[in-house]
Amino acid sequence: MKIPVLRNVFEKNEYAAAHNRTYFDEQSVTCINILGGAGAGKTALLEALLPRLGPELRVGVLEGDLATTKDAARIAALGVPVVQLLTDGGCHLTATLVKHGLERLPLKDLDLLIVENVGNPICPANFDLGEHLRISLLSVTEGDDKPAKYPLLFKDSSIVVISKCDLLEHTDFDMESAKRDIRRLSPQMEIFETAARAGSGIDRLGDWVASKLVPQRDDGDNAS
Amino acid sequence: MKIPVLRNVFEKNEYAAAHNRTYFDEQSVTCINILGGAGAGKTALLEALLPRLGPELRVGVLEGDLATTKDAARIAALGVPVVQLLTDGGCHLTATLVKHGLERLPLKDLDLLIVENVGNPICPANFDLGEHLRISLLSVTEGDDKPAKYPLLFKDSSIVVISKCDLLEHTDFDMESAKRDIRRLSPQMEIFETAARAGSGIDRLGDWVASKLVPQRDDGDNAS
Repeated sequence: MKIPVLRNVFEKNEYAAAHNRTYFDEQSVTCINILGGAGAGKTALLEALLPRLGPELRVGVLEGDLATTKDAARIAALGVPVVQLLTDGGCHLTATLVKHGLERLPLKDLDLLIVENVGNPICPANFDLGEHLRISLLSVTEGDDKPAKYPLLFKDSSIVVISKCDLLEHTDFDMESAKRDIRRLSPQMEIFETAARAGSGIDRLGDWVASKLVPQRDDGDNAS
Repeated sequence: MKIPVLRNVFEKNEYAAAHNRTYFDEQSVTCINILGGAGAGKTALLEALLPRLGPELRVGVLEGDLATTKDAARIAALGVPVVQLLTDGGCHLTATLVKHGLERLPLKDLDLLIVENVGNPICPANFDLGEHLRISLLSVTEGDDKPAKYPLLFKDSSIVVISKCDLLEHTDFDMESAKRDIRRLSPQMEIFETAARAGSGIDRLGDWVASKLVPQRDDGDNAS
């Protein structure tokens, strides 16, 4: 599969985000923005999650990175339509870059678009891409102090995924302390514990994603 | 120990960086800027390294974070003079914030100043703080693909530390691949493997740091 690669173009972010949101709604596509630090396990989570979403759910992915098409290649290997968005050193995705990525995906044939943001626990949280939902990742190998130290990443997320839980026993990560700090930022936050390699916690996450899909419009355009 | 806390002030970064560098040289202080993603193990490395630098080497630390004084408290617990620099959501330290931090440290009594930057693999690499040396961290739990994906973090660093090597056997991290990608960016890069919890690799790193100290001027101000 040849992976399209796009690079940054400048435009006011909020206009492009509003455009994207309208476009998603017109196409009855739910968009999820996945955020987390470098190596938090965002791509590995997608590798575990996407096959479980099943053939009845049509998914596309936009992969954000500073450089390389490594992540997009991992998604393409699953047979999922993917576009690599390269920021050329930029620390976050912009709504404009996402907008250009959308032109390369068959959006009218999709139910769900997942955008994997640049690996960075700070800047991406400040940029609306037009998404409906955000999933923020915290890996147990990063340390339980991160919710307090990077509040913006967790505060405005739809849910938080605590990843790499299969490594928990090899770390000093205090699960209760991490959850307490997350709920200090957002008292009702739903928290999922996952281990992508072992596949644990992925079904529950898949159920949550499926429950959040916008209803398909019955206009004859959709296969359902 | 009461930890001073400073927040951002605006000034052109390059002017403040030049000021800092001149000031370090006047005071015969070597300054090292430590960079790496969130949870790469920067503070844990300092906790292992600082006690090994010995009483004959006088060290001060500036701790950069978005929020909390958690890291500074860990350094203060070692009896090392420390100032917490808070960016209030900003994604990197600025030379100006460092400059203000210097006013709160007894620089004329120090040989070495270590600045721990905000946990972020992208933005801090773009901002000169006036330091003499940079150490960039990559933890094995982040993944061996990170040098290729975050080239700026590694390319201009003085050395690279591959941290959390005690967790290597629990990960898919390919050490040779990571080193190859680092040396593709910088062919002569010296790479240190450490495990801060186990204390391994710390002596070699301490020797490197000690070898890089600027010679003390014999002007009667220094205890030596």
